[in-house]
Parts: sequence; C-alpha cells; structure tokens
Amino acid sequence: MANAQGLKIAVIGGGSSYTPELVEGFIRYYNELPVRELWLVDIDAGLHKLNIVGNLAKRMVEKSGLPIEVHLTTDRRKAIAGADFVSTQMRVGMLDARGRDESIPLKYGVIGQETTGPGGMMKALRTIPVLLDVCRDIEELAPNAWLLNFTNPAGMVTEAILKYSNVRSIGLCNAPIGLIKQTSAKYNVEPDRIYAEFVGLNHLHWITRVDVEGEDKLDEMLADTTGYSATNVPAREWDPEFLKSLGAIPSYYLKYFYMTDAMLEEQLDSVKTGGNRAEVVKRVEAELFELYNDPELKDKPKQLEQRGGAFYSEAAINLMRSLHNGTNDIQTLNVANKGTIDFLPDDASIEVNCVVTKNGPLPLPLTKIPRSAVGLMHAVKTYEQLAIDAAVTGDRGLAIQAMAHHPLVPSVEVAIQMLDDMLEANKEYLPQFFEKSPANEVN
Amino acid sequence: MANAQGLKIAVIGGGSSYTPELVEGFIRYYNELPVRELWLVDIDAGLHKLNIVGNLAKRMVEKSGLPIEVHLTTDRRKAIAGADFVSTQMRVGMLDARGRDESIPLKYGVIGQETTGPGGMMKALRTIPVLLDVCRDIEELAPNAWLLNFTNPAGMVTEAILKYSNVRSIGLCNAPIGLIKQTSAKYNVEPDRIYAEFVGLNHLHWITRVDVEGEDKLDEMLADTTGYSATNVPAREWDPEFLKSLGAIPSYYLKYFYMTDAMLEEQLDSVKTGGNRAEVVKRVEAELFELYNDPELKDKPKQLEQRGGAFYSEAAINLMRSLHNGTNDIQTLNVANKGTIDFLPDDASIEVNCVVTKNGPLPLPLTKIPRSAVGLMHAVKTYEQLAIDAAVTGDRGLAIQAMAHHPLVPSVEVAIQMLDDMLEANKEYLPQFFEKSPANEVN
Amino acid sequence: MANAQGLKIAVIGGGSSYTPELVEGFIRYYNELPVRELWLVDIDAGLHKLNIVGNLAKRMVEKSGLPIEVHLTTDRRKAIAGADFVSTQMRVGMLDARGRDESIPLKYGVIGQETTGPGGMMKALRTIPVLLDVCRDIEELAPNAWLLNFTNPAGMVTEAILKYSNVRSIGLCNAPIGLIKQTSAKYNVEPDRIYAEFVGLNHLHWITRVDVEGEDKLDEMLADTTGYSATNVPAREWDPEFLKSLGAIPSYYLKYFYMTDAMLEEQLDSVKTGGNRAEVVKRVEAELFELYNDPELKDKPKQLEQRGGAFYSEAAINLMRSLHNGTNDIQTLNVANKGTIDFLPDDASIEVNCVVTKNGPLPLPLTKIPRSAVGLMHAVKTYEQLAIDAAVTGDRGLAIQAMAHHPLVPSVEVAIQMLDDMLEANKEYLPQFFEKSPANEVN
Amino acid sequence: MANAQGLKIAVIGGGSSYTPELVEGFIRYYNELPVRELWLVDIDAGLHKLNIVGNLAKRMVEKSGLPIEVHLTTDRRKAIAGADFVSTQMRVGMLDARGRDESIPLKYGVIGQETTGPGGMMKALRTIPVLLDVCRDIEELAPNAWLLNFTNPAGMVTEAILKYSNVRSIGLCNAPIGLIKQTSAKYNVEPDRIYAEFVGLNHLHWITRVDVEGEDKLDEMLADTTGYSATNVPAREWDPEFLKSLGAIPSYYLKYFYMTDAMLEEQLDSVKTGGNRAEVVKRVEAELFELYNDPELKDKPKQLEQRGGAFYSEAAINLMRSLHNGTNDIQTLNVANKGTIDFLPDDASIEVNCVVTKNGPLPLPLTKIPRSAVGLMHAVKTYEQLAIDAAVTGDRGLAIQAMAHHPLVPSVEVAIQMLDDMLEANKEYLPQFFEKSPANEVN
Repeated sequence: MANAQGLKIAVIGGGSSYTPELVEGFIRYYNELPVRELWLVDIDAGLHKLNIVGNLAKRMVEKSGLPIEVHLTTDRRKAIAGADFVSTQMRVGMLDARGRDESIPLKYGVIGQETTGPGGMMKALRTIPVLLDVCRDIEELAPNAWLLNFTNPAGMVTEAILKYSNVRSIGLCNAPIGLIKQTSAKYNVEPDRIYAEFVGLNHLHWITRVDVEGEDKLDEMLADTTGYSATNVPAREWDPEFLKSLGAIPSYYLKYFYMTDAMLEEQLDSVKTGGNRAEVVKRVEAELFELYNDPELKDKPKQLEQRGGAFYSEAAINLMRSLHNGTNDIQTLNVANKGTIDFLPDDASIEVNCVVTKNGPLPLPLTKIPRSAVGLMHAVKTYEQLAIDAAVTGDRGLAIQAMAHHPLVPSVEVAIQMLDDMLEANKEYLPQFFEKSPANEVN
Repeated sequence: MANAQGLKIAVIGGGSSYTPELVEGFIRYYNELPVRELWLVDIDAGLHKLNIVGNLAKRMVEKSGLPIEVHLTTDRRKAIAGADFVSTQMRVGMLDARGRDESIPLKYGVIGQETTGPGGMMKALRTIPVLLDVCRDIEELAPNAWLLNFTNPAGMVTEAILKYSNVRSIGLCNAPIGLIKQTSAKYNVEPDRIYAEFVGLNHLHWITRVDVEGEDKLDEMLADTTGYSATNVPAREWDPEFLKSLGAIPSYYLKYFYMTDAMLEEQLDSVKTGGNRAEVVKRVEAELFELYNDPELKDKPKQLEQRGGAFYSEAAINLMRSLHNGTNDIQTLNVANKGTIDFLPDDASIEVNCVVTKNGPLPLPLTKIPRSAVGLMHAVKTYEQLAIDAAVTGDRGLAIQAMAHHPLVPSVEVAIQMLDDMLEANKEYLPQFFEKSPANEVN
Repeated sequence: MANAQGLKIAVIGGGSSYTPELVEGFIRYYNELPVRELWLVDIDAGLHKLNIVGNLAKRMVEKSGLPIEVHLTTDRRKAIAGADFVSTQMRVGMLDARGRDESIPLKYGVIGQETTGPGGMMKALRTIPVLLDVCRDIEELAPNAWLLNFTNPAGMVTEAILKYSNVRSIGLCNAPIGLIKQTSAKYNVEPDRIYAEFVGLNHLHWITRVDVEGEDKLDEMLADTTGYSATNVPAREWDPEFLKSLGAIPSYYLKYFYMTDAMLEEQLDSVKTGGNRAEVVKRVEAELFELYNDPELKDKPKQLEQRGGAFYSEAAINLMRSLHNGTNDIQTLNVANKGTIDFLPDDASIEVNCVVTKNGPLPLPLTKIPRSAVGLMHAVKTYEQLAIDAAVTGDRGLAIQAMAHHPLVPSVEVAIQMLDDMLEANKEYLPQFFEKSPANEVN
Repeated sequence: MANAQGLKIAVIGGGSSYTPELVEGFIRYYNELPVRELWLVDIDAGLHKLNIVGNLAKRMVEKSGLPIEVHLTTDRRKAIAGADFVSTQMRVGMLDARGRDESIPLKYGVIGQETTGPGGMMKALRTIPVLLDVCRDIEELAPNAWLLNFTNPAGMVTEAILKYSNVRSIGLCNAPIGLIKQTSAKYNVEPDRIYAEFVGLNHLHWITRVDVEGEDKLDEMLADTTGYSATNVPAREWDPEFLKSLGAIPSYYLKYFYMTDAMLEEQLDSVKTGGNRAEVVKRVEAELFELYNDPELKDKPKQLEQRGGAFYSEAAINLMRSLHNGTNDIQTLNVANKGTIDFLPDDASIEVNCVVTKNGPLPLPLTKIPRSAVGLMHAVKTYEQLAIDAAVTGDRGLAIQAMAHHPLVPSVEVAIQMLDDMLEANKEYLPQFFEKSPANEVN
C-alpha cells in the first residue's frame, strides 16, 4: 500500500477534539506505522476548530522530531487521494443535533440517547448519506485504502458502507478496549494477558469469556454486579440473579434495554437538573479547545482522557498497525457477519473478535452465544437494517417501520409522532426525505 | 392406521364446552372420517362437566344414526390406548388460573393476556409438563397416533412436544380459518376460492398474500384499517401508513405489540368496569353448560359460536380428514420449522401453510417475509424457547431470562418481581419449581 | 393471464415429432385449459417438418370442432408476443450434433450420451445461448408468460434461464411421470393413487418414497432389481445388496454412474452393431413424418408412443392446467433450489416434488435424502454450474474445469483432449468460443 | 493443564521410527513446552521396536541434560492417565496391511494408495475402532488432554473421534508445513514470512493464496507446473491451462483424482519393477532401526528425514506449544467444520487454517474457495462419512455404499468385489464385520 517514503493518512473530521490522541499514537508507534503525511480535513463550519487542533498536532510532531507532514484542509478529495488509511470521526449537525437526538424522545417517554434508540436512528439518517459521499471519493481516489469508521452509530454506518459502497471498511468502538483496560486494572495484569470474547452488535454486545493469564474469570466477573461501565452511560447495579442466569457480561449500553424504566427516569431527572449529555460534552469540549489553543502546549493534555471517548485513538492505531504489518493479532471489530453469528444475515455488521491479517480482519468463530440474547440482537438488527435503508433512500415508509420496530418504542402511534417531530427538527440535514426526486423512491 | 371398523379418537379435556362442535364435525364428515370410537376424557375435577357435555354428545350421535360409540372416562390411558388421533383442549388451573394470568401483569403495568406476554408464560409453565405426561402415554400406548394440540399457548406447547417427546404432533389455532371466513364474507366467495399465506409464530403471524378467486387482494385488504379481528381481542384501528409500509396483514394478537400503550389502557379500563376476559368467559361457559344439560337438546347450540373459539373443531376435523385420506390440501398449522423460516432455529415451532400428506404436514416455502417482522419473530421465539425449557426443568434462572427478554416486559427488575408474584400464585400447578429434586436441575 | 377469449400458447421447435401429442392434450383438456391460439414456431431449416406436423395439428383440431387457431411461423417474436405459455423443445444442431455428442466421448473411452457426461455438456454449450435468446424475446414481448422448458439437458438449461434471465421458467422431464405409470401398471392402480418422492437433479434423481394407495411400497420396489427403466437407456439389473443399502430407487440415468464400465461396454458394442442412439432415433423420426404427412391422418398416431419421449406432452399439459387453475396439486419439476436441498446452492436447479400454485411451483420439503447420494449430486452440480457459465461466456478455462470435474471423465488430460475435439466438431454452433469479443470475456 | 513440575505427554505408537524427531523437538523447545514425563507406549507386537527407539530417546534426553523422564510401556492406561497431550501414530496391521491396501485395488484396475481410495478405506476400517478405544481411556483417565492425531487417514480418524467421543482432538498432517518449506526454499525467505490459505479435506486440499513477505505469489506459483510435491507421491507435471483456470494449487494427493489414468499406470509399472510403496518403506524402516540400535547414537539421524513423514513432529511440537501457551498463531489443522466450509456438514472434519488459542483451534473464515473443487470435496466427504460409520458399526451395507460412491471406483460391481476381497484380507483386524453382535447392528 504505502510507498517507499511512508503512509498517507486522511482524518475526516480532523478538527475533532479527539485528534491529539491520534497524533500522539502516530508519534509513539512511528516505527511500526511510518506515517509520512497526515491530512486533517474538516468542513468549512469546522475550520476554526481544525486550525486550533491542527496547530497543536503540528507542534506535537515538531517536538517528536519525526518526518511526519501535517496538512490541514477543507478539500476532502485532496486529503483522500492516494491515502492508505482514511479515518472518520464526524458529527453531522454537531452537538446541537445531538442535543435534539437526546431530548425529543424524552418528550414521548422514550429513552433519549445518541446511539441507542430513536436518537441513534436520527443520527444514522443524518450521517449515512454523508459517509457514503466520502466513500464515493475513496472509491475514485484511493480504492485500496482502508476506511476506519468511528462515526456513530458505528455499527449502522459500517453496515451501510459495506452494503452501498466498494470501500474496504472496518467499524471501531472504544468499548471493547475499555473492558480490557478495566479487567487489567481489576486483576493488575497487562492487557495482553487478557482474552475476552465479544458477541453482538455495536453498542449491543455481550462478553462470553474472559481469560486472565489463561484462567477463566467469567464467573468471578459476573458476581460483580457493577458490571463494566464507562463515563458516558450512568452507572447502575445489575441484578445478581439475572447476571448469573444470563451467563455473559452485558455491555453498559444494554442498560437501556434491561433497565429501561430506571434509565429513563434518570434521564428525565438529569434534564431537570443539568441538561442532557450533549450539554455536558459541549462544556468539556469548550475547555479542551481553550487548552489546545495554548501555543506552549506540545502534548496531548491529560484532560482529554475525561472526554468519554477514551481509547478511540488507541483502537485506531492498533488496527492500522496490524493491517499494515499483517500481525494476525486479535481485535474486536465491526465487520460483515458472513455466517459468524449464524442466525443473523450475512451482510449484517456485527461486533466480534477478528484476526487482523494484511488482507483485512477475519472474524473468529464464536465459542459461545448467550441464548437469551438472540432475540434482542435480532430485534435491533431488524431496526438497523430498516433505518439504514431509510437513510439511503429517504423512504418514509421504511423510516416508520424502523421506528415502530425499535424495541424501546412502545407503539406504532408513538413511533409515527416521534418520527415526524424528529424529521422536522433535522430537516436541514435530511435532504433525502424533504427534497424528493425519482431517485429517492424505493423500488 | 385405523382398523377395519373405523377410527379411534381420544379427546383430552373432553369436558370442554367446545366438544359439541367437534361432535358435530365427526357426524357431518363421517364418510371421509369414519369414527368408530370417540373417547372423551377429563380429570376428576372436570367430571361433572364431562358428564353434561358427554351426554349431549351421545344424544347428538344417536340422532345422527351413525355407528359411533361415545365413551366418557377419567382413565386417560384407556382412552389413548390404540387411538388414531388424540386431541387436547385443556386448561390447567381452569379459569381461575386464567384470571390470575390476566390480572397479575396489570399490577406491574404490563399487558395481561392468556397467551401473549407474562400471562402466556405462566400458562406455558403450568401446561407443558401436563401435556408431556400425556405424550408419555401416547408414546407407550398409541405410538402411531397423531396428536392435535389446541391447548394454548399452542405454539409453545407444540414446540415442547416436538422437542421433548417422540409423539407426532401438530399445533392448531382457529385464527387462520377466521381470516379465511372473514375474507369469504367480505368478498362473498366460497372459502375454497381464497388462498392466504401466513408466516410467523402462533398468535404472532402476518399474512403476506391473499388471493381471492386468483386475484391478489392484499393491497385492498391492507387499505382496510380495521384489519382482521376476533371477539377475544379488542377491536382497534391500524394506522394506514404503518399498514401500507408493513406490506402484510398483522394478526390481531399483534395489537399487543404494535399498540401496547392503548391495549394496556383498555385492559386497565376493562378491569375497572367489568372484570377481565376470564370473568366474561366464565359467565358464557356457565350459560352454555346450562343449555347442554337440557335432555331435549340434540344439536350443537347456536350460542357456542359466540364463545370465541369459533372454528376450532372445524380446524381439527379438516386436519384429521386430510391426514386420514392423504388429500395433500393446504392448511395453516404449527409445525417444526426445519428451514422454512430460514432465520429461525430448525426446531422452532412456526405457524405456516402446509401440504397435509398422509405422512403429516409438509410446510410450503414462503414466497414473502415482511422484513420488519423478522426481529419481533425472533425476540418472541427466544422468549418462547427459554420459557419452554423453564417449564420442563423448573429452572428459575431460565424463567428469569424468559420473562426479562419478553418484548412486553419493560425491565429486568419488573420481570423478576412479576415472576415471583406469578410463581407464588401458581404454586399449586408448578411442582417443577417448588418440589426440587436433582432431576429438576439444569445440566 | 389469459384474456377473455382464451390462452395463447407458443411452441418453440413446433416442428418436432412430439407436437401431435401436445395437440392431443390441448384438445382433451380444453375445458380446463381453454387454448385460443396455438403458435408452432421453428427455424428456417425446420420449415419442411413444421409444415407437415403443423398441418396434422390443424386436421386434429378441425376434427375436434374446438375454436383453437393453429398458426405456423418462423417468426419467433410474433409467436411469443403476448403468449401465456411458451414451451420449448429444440435441438440445436439437430440429430447430427447428437450423433457427435454420443460418438466423440467413446473415442476416449468415456460414456457417450446426449444429456449425461461430455455429450450433455456439448449440448448445453450449443443450446443455452439459443434459449437465452428466446428469453430475451419473452422478457420483452410476454413478460408474464410461463416458459416450460423440455429442452435437454433440461436441468442445466433451466438453471441457466433462472440465473441469466427474468423469465418465469420451469423445467420438465418425462422420467418422473414414467415412474408413476410403471408403478401404476405394476400394482394395477390409478396413477393418482400413487405418491412418489423425488430428490436430486434432472437425470440424476433418486426416489425415496413410493406410496401406493397409502401403503409404503419402497422396500418392495427396491427388491425388484430391474428398477425403473425407459426405452432410451439400456436395461441392466441392479445389484440387490447395493439397492437395499442405498435405500432409494435410482433413476435409470444413474446407471451411467453406477455401472459405468458395463454401460460403456454396451455403448461400444452398440456402435459396432447398429450405430448409436442418434441413428436409431433418425430412423424412427423419418417413419413418423411419413405418417404425419398422410392427409387422411387426423389423430396422433400410435407409433409416436415408441419414440422415447413418452409422457412429455402429458407433463406439459398437466403443468399448464395446474398453473392456469391454481390447483395446488403436486408435480415433479425442475426449479430453483432455494434451500430445499440444503447442501446445494440456492440458485441450483433441482428436480423435486412441488405444489403447483397459480403463482408457480413451490418445492415441498424433502422427508428423506439418501446420504450416499449427497456427494454425487454435488459433484454433478459443480460440473453443471461450470458448464453453464462456460456456455454463457465462451470461456475456455471454465469449459476445461467443467469437463475435468465431471465424474465420468477419468483425467484432466482426457478432459482437455476431448474438449478440444468436441469444440472443433461443434464450431458452427459455438460462436461464443470462436468469435471472441470483449463481451465474451469472464471478469 | 500441567502441574507445577511440567507436562505429561503420552505417545501411542511410541515405537514408531518417527519418535526420535518428536524427542528432538521436545528437547529443542523445552523452554516453551516444559515436558516432565514422556510416555512411549506400544502394543506387545511392537515391544522390540519400542525398546530400540525408546533407548535412543533416553540417550537423546540424557545428552540434553534436561529433566525429562522417558517411560517405555505397553500399558496404555498408565501412559494416558493424567496426560496433558496424547499423540497417536499407529499402524493397525503394520506394513503388511499397508501392502495389501496398496496391492488389492490394483487387481481391479483401481488406484492402490494407503490413504486415498479403497486402500484408505480399509485403513480406516481397521484403525478407527482402535483409536476410539484409546479415546475411551482418555475420556476416563485424562478428560482434559488434547489428542493430537497423526494416524492416517487422519481426516477420517479425526472426524470419527469428534463424532463418537468426547475427547478434545485435532488432526495433523505434514503436507501444509511441506508447502511452506518448499515456498520458503523457492523464495529464499523464512517460513514465518509466508502465509498460505488451505481449503479442503485431509489429503484433498487446495491452496488458494500464498503471500510471501506480504506479496501475493499465487499466480507465479500456479505458473510452475511441477506444483508442490512430496517424496511419497510420484512427481508429475500439471497441465498449465488446467492449473490457471483452477486458480488454486492442488495438493499432490489430488493427482490421484486429476491424473487417475497416469497415476494408475505408474503404480502398475512400479509393482512390476520394485514392489509397492509399502515395500520401499519396509526397507527404509529396517535401515533406520539398525541405526537407532547403535548405543553410540545420541541424536536423531539425518536419514530419518528421507522417511517421507518429514515435518510430522515439527507440526506436533508447534501445535502443543501453541495450545500450551495460547499463542493465537495460525496453523493448518484438521478440525470440525462448523460452518467454515458452508456447503459441508457441520460435523465434517476439514483441513483449514486455524488460530490456535488456549482453548483449542478456531478455524478462520475462508477468503476464497475454488468453485471447481466443491463437487469433489463433497463426493469424497460423502464417501468418508459412510466409511466412518461402516468402521464404527461394522455394517456391510454402509461399507458397500462407501466403496461404491468413492470417486475412484468405477462401478458398483467392482466396488462390491473389491470390498469382499479386502474385507477377507483384513479379517483379523475387522472384528466389527466378522464377529457380529447386536451392538454392531445399525439402528
């Protein structure tokens, strides 16, 4: 892939607050991943942030003394042309749209969350067409590039790309690394001495095996009802009998399904007291950019680790290193199912352990599937498939079906009201639903 | 199967108010289904009703002049020995248990219904072990008999029998015949000029095709938002946009999933005003038995048709006639999936069209599956499989998993509370949960 | 489909000696299959035969007094336009080509047969492109027509049409009806009292169940080592131990696989004594056309029944009647697999029992697959798939692979020599291999 | 698995001439695979050879100075009790039986080879019951042990163990390592810089990808018509057009299928000139044991590398090291299919690349399957499944079906004659066919 001088990396949404973490990774692992050109690209509206974060990136590289060129641009095609890796971390409609994703469902007594539930569906409708546009550019200008997708809802976005483009794409999430880190801390062992088997979808996975230094620790971990957790999902204890009979550690995102009533109450309370998660993140981001703007800062600031997206760039760098070197190591990734979870469609994106070869990730056979989880996986996947096709076609009927069949939506009536409300609120970002042309019709 | 003199039929739960309909069918179709011995069997507690209904049966046969012997007994083994067909229509715990199935969930703000939701699960826990006992007798005393199962929840009971016995069993429901009758009335054509394709599970099916005299009438029927209905499920209009984009006619039982909030409200109102459905049925039954007890009555009384279980015996007689004569006609039945619905397990019971051969029903390939419905089918099937295994083993963990994963149950917390409440209320009928022995342990 | 006045039928290869049988069928079943226009179409080279057989058809219809119009034409598009059913019975290269199909393999010590083995492959290479041309016309001029394909190798031709056109097509063979007729004669019962289950591919099927008046007669029939047979395949006894342990009645075409050495010897002897099967058929055909040409003949002559293709038109008329009336009866047909034989690809053509609905045949689930037969089915299907793609693309590499992997071909070396010999001998009919254009390249 | 002092290894057939290679491996990799006890076990008839080779093993260990105890025994149970790894390398009937496996088919004009064709089937019939006896001991005495099976026909033996025992078993062959070594020599790179993807069955695989230092070299290797080879299969050039259109490198064992006529001729010639392969091996073995018996010899003699089974012990040691340390590296192994090759049964043994985890090998998804090979894989697998069940049950019908359906057997008639001949010749080792008891009957 790479030419003699090194690799070209394009980061779509390069003005994100996460970028310094990525840059830090490129510096640290330069020997295994010789980056020659790093292109940070963003839209016009993000130019201010791009410059701030881009200049920090330049200062970080300069300090390292490595021959990495950092380019800042709003010309996406120029950034993509000939790239070896394209990474995406974008937010169509920015934090304001996220705020609406979180608040509108609450009006209908439904969980309001940016990736799970109706909020996630709105995000998918806004985001998928933009990502597919990026893919058109990659198909033309960098057909051999790997697209590493972090853009949420990462599972749906990855599946849309696999279905509707020829781009070689892999979806990533920081949650699996989070579980490893948490277990590493709990048992005080190095992360590479831990093996965990994941099964499910993005933000809807179960961990069915945890080996620590070769010892099976699953039962021990199931006995701990705090479960595994992250800063962006409120903590809540699991019922011990439920956890034991489930026989697998649920993702913290599964609290929205297994503790719906309590999580909803918490969200409603939270709105009353301090605004939704989007508001919190806005404040954190503002503080970060203030730090980044300091011309004396030449390193990733510690505060970034509080941001919620911890380990994102670690996941990205790990994956690029393994693809570039063909290390055949095992990582938890979002890939096309192709029979791995035998009851899901072949073209469904799933989140499972893969061997990362030079030719891409190969999903490992699963050694255990929690039988209780089968129905929920399927229910959410059906919703995801309908929502993806609604996003691509702008077909209102598909959007109604998607919303009505989401397990967190209580009835068809609520589904349609909420959908209408959300479509209207996102009108600016949903031309496929509002600017009808024959090409938008479903056949 | 049958010997020279004709067929032997055993009806388990013969004291049911439905029996006169069955007897009427045997009389009408005697030429095609030459019944020699009809054994009505019931438990001691049902002896009074058995005598009333059995004597009416005898008077009906006598009037017909046919050489059918009617036997009344509480000796199940005697009834089963050498039978050609065994039919079951039982209610473990009788209408009082049904009342509890309907009322307890309502306390937790959950749909209370005898086959759908937590109520159906309780019924399954009570019923499956009793049916499997019947199967032990059939395996021993009538290994070639066909077991026609009407006992609700018919899908789960049929699946339990297919998995945990060697009996040749078929599950039946009156809903598919109801759709045909309703369409027949709407278009004023004979039922045999209508072809409808069903897909799904018992009480969770969708109709994807309706041909009337060779003309496709699906779109026309989808435009009618009253949908298809039955007396035992409250009427409610469907949203027209939803129906059109769904592209299939939903079973009236699907209202519990698609209109959960409104159906729940209706149930809560109904409790306030006149008691639950069990109360209504109790009154109807009392009236029917008073009629049956009239020694002058020698025919099925018209009032039986109001009972809710219309067409049950028509379905049963049709199936027995086709099996006996190998007519290869098409009926909608509950059978093992074996790849028919390719995303469900092979051993799942499903409700689909089958060609009824002399060797049993062969499910027809499906020509269309509503994609929106895939997730819901799977979610309910996962619950059903967990509940079946809980019923067989008495394993509390499985019961928790089943309840917690039912789509109508809002959280693990509610699931466990409701389960504890219902187990306690059904203690008398659930020895597998309360009289623990090593044999009841899951391996 | 049909308009008020009745149906339009187009018979491609209408000048065939089989046509009078078809006409007889249309007359006999006019009430159920009201044919208004019968178009017999043939190529210029067949015009002489078309006129002879067409005039006989006209005399037959006239005698019947039915309002059927018989049209003779060489304008295929005119015949197809608006047709309800299109039937094909063609022989690209005529009997001379068949002669070469049968004789060339023998030079290499390989079975020479017109449908099985290398001869069948050559026939497929010649025939498939012509049939796909017919399909292009049907797609344009009669998109709702059913194409009934009798053209051999019927399985491969049907599969090619299913894969490479949008035409609704069904493949037919007379062998299954032959088995029923033979069993009917053996047990002296009406054919409709016999139920036989077929599994496999065209000319490569096994019968796994034979019920005569509801009684299972499989073992009895397996004890008869003459098996089932037909005039066009030499008779030979089966080994009784083999038949018993196989547990299924093999098609007579399977003798080429199970008795390869003896069948080959027989073919070699036969060449020495009286020429191959093509020679025999040529003589029979000449005699038939002499009869047909008699202006006094107004009925199908008895001699046609000796022709080898007995029951072809019966099969065709049965299928048209069932499709037209939606009778839902069971017929053995060549259709797309779609999971019926679960180890074969979904798009493979298979020969199995189907329920014939108004919307086409639905394959019935198989109740038994002889496990010994699985490998042979797969080996032949792999060859078929390669040969079909070779026929469509003209790709020599695919043709080499097809020939080399046919179970009757002893080595790659023989495969390539024989292929070269046969391609050269069929050059006139294989433009796809000899007139190379970029469109013929495999991608 | 292992206790604090190190691992226990049991080698069934420890008197084999291969053993010194294994011992050399244990010595070289002691750090990663700390063997404490090495038990060489053989039957009474092999005691003489066991002592010779066992004493050499002791001298080798002594020279190394490592704390490995070498035990020689004929008490299999003692050797197995508590073992961590059990390795098998046995030859039921010894080289005399192999001679018959090779010579009898030749009398019928059929390939005579010890693993492919009728010879392999005889070996399977003799060997499988003995291996299953070993498994009974492992189940009882070392339930957590890994059984590494090298005993040929390794694919069938492995499948029999997977189906008919609870032992954790993996089948191994030296051919895949051979391909790597050959490629390593050709390109002058280290073996670990080569990645080759295998698909198929034991002794019936195809290589679909060869990366050398990250570069795809498949086309280059396909252009070399000598293919990949080994000393035990005669060299013969491949046809270049065939190889190119096949698109995969065939195993050298595939010459028996693709060049049947030439390979047969070669075997017949070889018999005339110098005896079959068994004779050759006998001479080589005699020479080896003479060397081993030299009390001054304290190393594996160079001559062993000429023996044909090169790399066997390297494969074994690699696998044990990876299992013991959970290295997650990729090895080509014989494992249960479970959907990896989606057209073969789940319980079929296949030979593919696996990630070797601490919990056993996980087969990697295949990136390419040569479509021409599908039928042949299936044909051989059908034969294998029938032969395995014949071996276990002693059912003559199954044995007839297996033999008659082997692709190299020309007819049912030859199959039965040859089978009778071979059963008689192996009578001594086939009690399941000759000492009938009810337990040997198939149900």
